[in-house]
Amino acid sequence: MQDTYGDLISSLAIKNDKKIVLLVMDGLGDCDNAGKGTALQIAKKPNMDALAAKSALGLLVPVAQGVTPGSGPGHIALFGYDPLIYQVGRGALSALGVEFGLTPRDIAARLNFCTLDKAGNVADRRAGRPSDDENRSVLAKVRQKIKAPAGVEVFLETEAEHRALLVLRGDKLDDNIGDTDPQQTGVAPLSADRPPHDKSKTARMAQNLIDQVRKILADEPKLNMILARGFAKAPHWPSFADRWKLNPAAVAGYPMYRGVAKLFGMPLAAKPTAAADICSETAKALRDHDFIFAHFKYTDKTGEDGDLAGKVKRIEEMDAALPALLAAKPDVLIITGDHSTPPSLKSHSWHPIPVLMAAPSLRGGDGKPFDEVSCRFGQIGTICSKELVPLALAHAGKLEKFGA
Amino acid sequence: MQDTYGDLISSLAIKNDKKIVLLVMDGLGDCDNAGKGTALQIAKKPNMDALAAKSALGLLVPVAQGVTPGSGPGHIALFGYDPLIYQVGRGALSALGVEFGLTPRDIAARLNFCTLDKAGNVADRRAGRPSDDENRSVLAKVRQKIKAPAGVEVFLETEAEHRALLVLRGDKLDDNIGDTDPQQTGVAPLSADRPPHDKSKTARMAQNLIDQVRKILADEPKLNMILARGFAKAPHWPSFADRWKLNPAAVAGYPMYRGVAKLFGMPLAAKPTAAADICSETAKALRDHDFIFAHFKYTDKTGEDGDLAGKVKRIEEMDAALPALLAAKPDVLIITGDHSTPPSLKSHSWHPIPVLMAAPSLRGGDGKPFDEVSCRFGQIGTICSKELVPLALAHAGKLEKFGA
Repeated sequence: MQDTYGDLISSLAIKNDKKIVLLVMDGLGDCDNAGKGTALQIAKKPNMDALAAKSALGLLVPVAQGVTPGSGPGHIALFGYDPLIYQVGRGALSALGVEFGLTPRDIAARLNFCTLDKAGNVADRRAGRPSDDENRSVLAKVRQKIKAPAGVEVFLETEAEHRALLVLRGDKLDDNIGDTDPQQTGVAPLSADRPPHDKSKTARMAQNLIDQVRKILADEPKLNMILARGFAKAPHWPSFADRWKLNPAAVAGYPMYRGVAKLFGMPLAAKPTAAADICSETAKALRDHDFIFAHFKYTDKTGEDGDLAGKVKRIEEMDAALPALLAAKPDVLIITGDHSTPPSLKSHSWHPIPVLMAAPSLRGGDGKPFDEVSCRFGQIGTICSKELVPLALAHAGKLEKFGA
Repeated sequence: MQDTYGDLISSLAIKNDKKIVLLVMDGLGDCDNAGKGTALQIAKKPNMDALAAKSALGLLVPVAQGVTPGSGPGHIALFGYDPLIYQVGRGALSALGVEFGLTPRDIAARLNFCTLDKAGNVADRRAGRPSDDENRSVLAKVRQKIKAPAGVEVFLETEAEHRALLVLRGDKLDDNIGDTDPQQTGVAPLSADRPPHDKSKTARMAQNLIDQVRKILADEPKLNMILARGFAKAPHWPSFADRWKLNPAAVAGYPMYRGVAKLFGMPLAAKPTAAADICSETAKALRDHDFIFAHFKYTDKTGEDGDLAGKVKRIEEMDAALPALLAAKPDVLIITGDHSTPPSLKSHSWHPIPVLMAAPSLRGGDGKPFDEVSCRFGQIGTICSKELVPLALAHAGKLEKFGA
C-alpha cells in the first residue's frame, strides 16, 4: 500500500521558523458515561475553554470508523503516518515499551508466561497474572540456564505481570516465525516452526529456545511455560524529521510513548509525567526544536481504571499547567488524544477524539467549551488523525502550494 | 480492488451476546419536495422523535457523493460491503428479484421485451410497457417453442411489465456475452457474440436463443423481440455471518430484498410487508439471532409514485408499530434507508440518508426530531453506508482493538 496522501504532503513540506506543539492527552475522548457526561464536559478547565473560544475545533478518527486503536496506531496516525500502512509488530512494540533498542539484526517477540497442565495443554494463558517480581525472578532463572544458538545473542526482558520480551540478535535472521499462543486453553502450544514457517532457520531456533524454557521451568507451579506472539523486526520508516522537514523532539515520561517517538527518529527532550512538568519542559524544548510531541498519560490511565472523577481531575491538572506552555508562544498549538478511553468502558474506544488547534489564520474561534459536543461543530470537522500534522504544517506556513 | 476497510473490520470482529437491529425504511431520505418539506419532517412520529432524543444521528452516503444507488448497491453497502467492489450483474439481480435460485452453473441476463420496426430496428425499447399478464402470455409462447442447446437448460421468467429473466444452466458456461440492447431506438439490436465476445461458446448460444425468439415472436404486434443485458454469474461473496461473526436473519416481505439477503447467506426469518408485522416479527427473530435486517418497502414505493402524503403515512405507520420492536430491547437499534426516494423526483436519488442509532455508549442523545436536518448535526456525522455495520459492531462491543 502506498501512502499517497502522506507522500503528497511530504513533497510540499518546507522549513521555516514557526513552532508547533502537539500535546497528546492520552485517551482524552469520552462517551457520556451513562448520562454523567464526558470528562471534558465535567472538568473545570478555564484555560482550555478560553483557548477553545479563539481556536479551531474538530474531531479525529484515529484509524477508521468503528475501529478502536491501540496506543501504537493511535500515535502513528497522530504523527501523520497512515496507521494501516505503518503497522508495527507486537514484538517490536514490546521492545519499545521497555526501551529495548532494537537493531536491524534483531527479531523481537512478545512472550506471555502461561501455565501448562500435566497433559501439556494450556491451562492459563496468563499464568494467573503473576506480579512483576515473580516474572523477574522466573525470567532470571531462564536467563541463567538457556543456551543461545551459535552466533546468536538472546535477550529476555520483563515487561509487566505475565508479559516479557524475547529478542534474537544475529546475522540473516528472519521473522517468518509462527505465534505459539493457541489463543485458547485446553490445547497444546503451537510450534513456532510449523508449516509454512518450517523453511525458516530462525523459526527452528525460536522453537529450540522455547523447548529449553519448558524444561527449565518444568518444576514451576504456575509460570511453567511461555507463549510467543508477534515475532517482528523493528520497522525502518521514514523519519519524522525527513518526512515533514521538522526538527522534532519528544517530551514523554512513559517508555511506550518514548518508544513510538523513537520509531520515527524523534529525540527525547525530557521525560516528565506530571502535567506541570510536561508544560514547562515543552516550553523549554521549544527553544531548540520546531515541533514538540508532548505526552500526558494519566487521562488514559484513569479512563482504563473506570475512574471518571480521576480523569476529570487529570484534565483539570493539565488545564492549570497550560499557562506555562502558552507563555512559550508556539505558533500552532494542538491539544488532542491518541484515542478515546471512556471510564464507563474501562478501555480504549472507537469514539472520535476532540481536537483543539490554536493557530494564526483561522475562520474565527469556534467557541467554548472544549468538549466532544462543541468539537463536532468546529471548523476542522471530523478528519482522520493522520491529517492533523499536515493541517498543522499548513497553519504554520510549512507547506508549499500544489500545482501552479 | 481489495476491501481494505471491510477486511480490517472483519479481522477484528468477535462474537458476544449483544443484539443489533437494522431497520431499513426503503427510500427513507428525501429532499424538500418543492418547499413542502421532507416526508420525515411532515410525519407525526412521536416514537422515532423520542428515540432520536436519546440516540446518535447522522447521514449516510450509500455509494459516493452525487451517486444515486439502485436497491442492490444500497443494501450491499448497508450490509458493510463496499458497493464499488461487491457489484452484482443486472442478470443476477433480476434472478434475486424473482427469487430464482441461481446455481454456480448458471448465467443470468435481464431481458426487455421490445418492439422492432419493419426494417428490424428498435422502435420501442420497452415494447410500450406491457402489463405483467401480456408479458407472461408472450413468454409462455417462447417457452413452448424455444429449443435449448445440447446439454444446457434454458429458463425464462416474467419479472414485471417489459422485464424478464433469462437463465442458461450448464457446464462450463461463461459470462463473456455482449449486451444486445443498443440503448437507443432506430438502430438494430446488437449481437451477443460480436467481438470481443466471439470467442465465447456461451455467447454464441445466447445469440442463437435470441434469434429463435425473434422468429417465434415475428407475428406479435408489440412484443416482437427481446433485448438482453447484464449476462452474469451469481456472485460468491463472503457470507454476512462469516464476515462479521454474527448470526443474522432477514425480515423482508419483498423478493428483491430477500434476494439481496440471500446473496450474503442471510436466512429469512419472516416475510411481512406491513409495518406492524415487520416490528413484531423482528422482535420474535431477535430471540434466535444477534442481527436482524428488517425491510419496509412502502416508503420507497410511495416516493417512486410521487405520493408525498402516502410516504408520510407510511412513516407514521412504522412509527406506530415501533414500540413492539423496542419492547424486544435490542442493544443497538438502527433506523435508516438504503437510499433517498424524494416524491418530487419520483425516483431514487443521491441525497444522503438520515440514520438513527440507539446504543449504550453514546455522547448523549442528539435530540429530536428525526429528520434530514437534525441528522446533519448528529454525532455520527456524514459517513458511508458501508461504515454503518462496523459502527454498530463497535457499539455492541463486537470489535477487538487494532494494534497494541
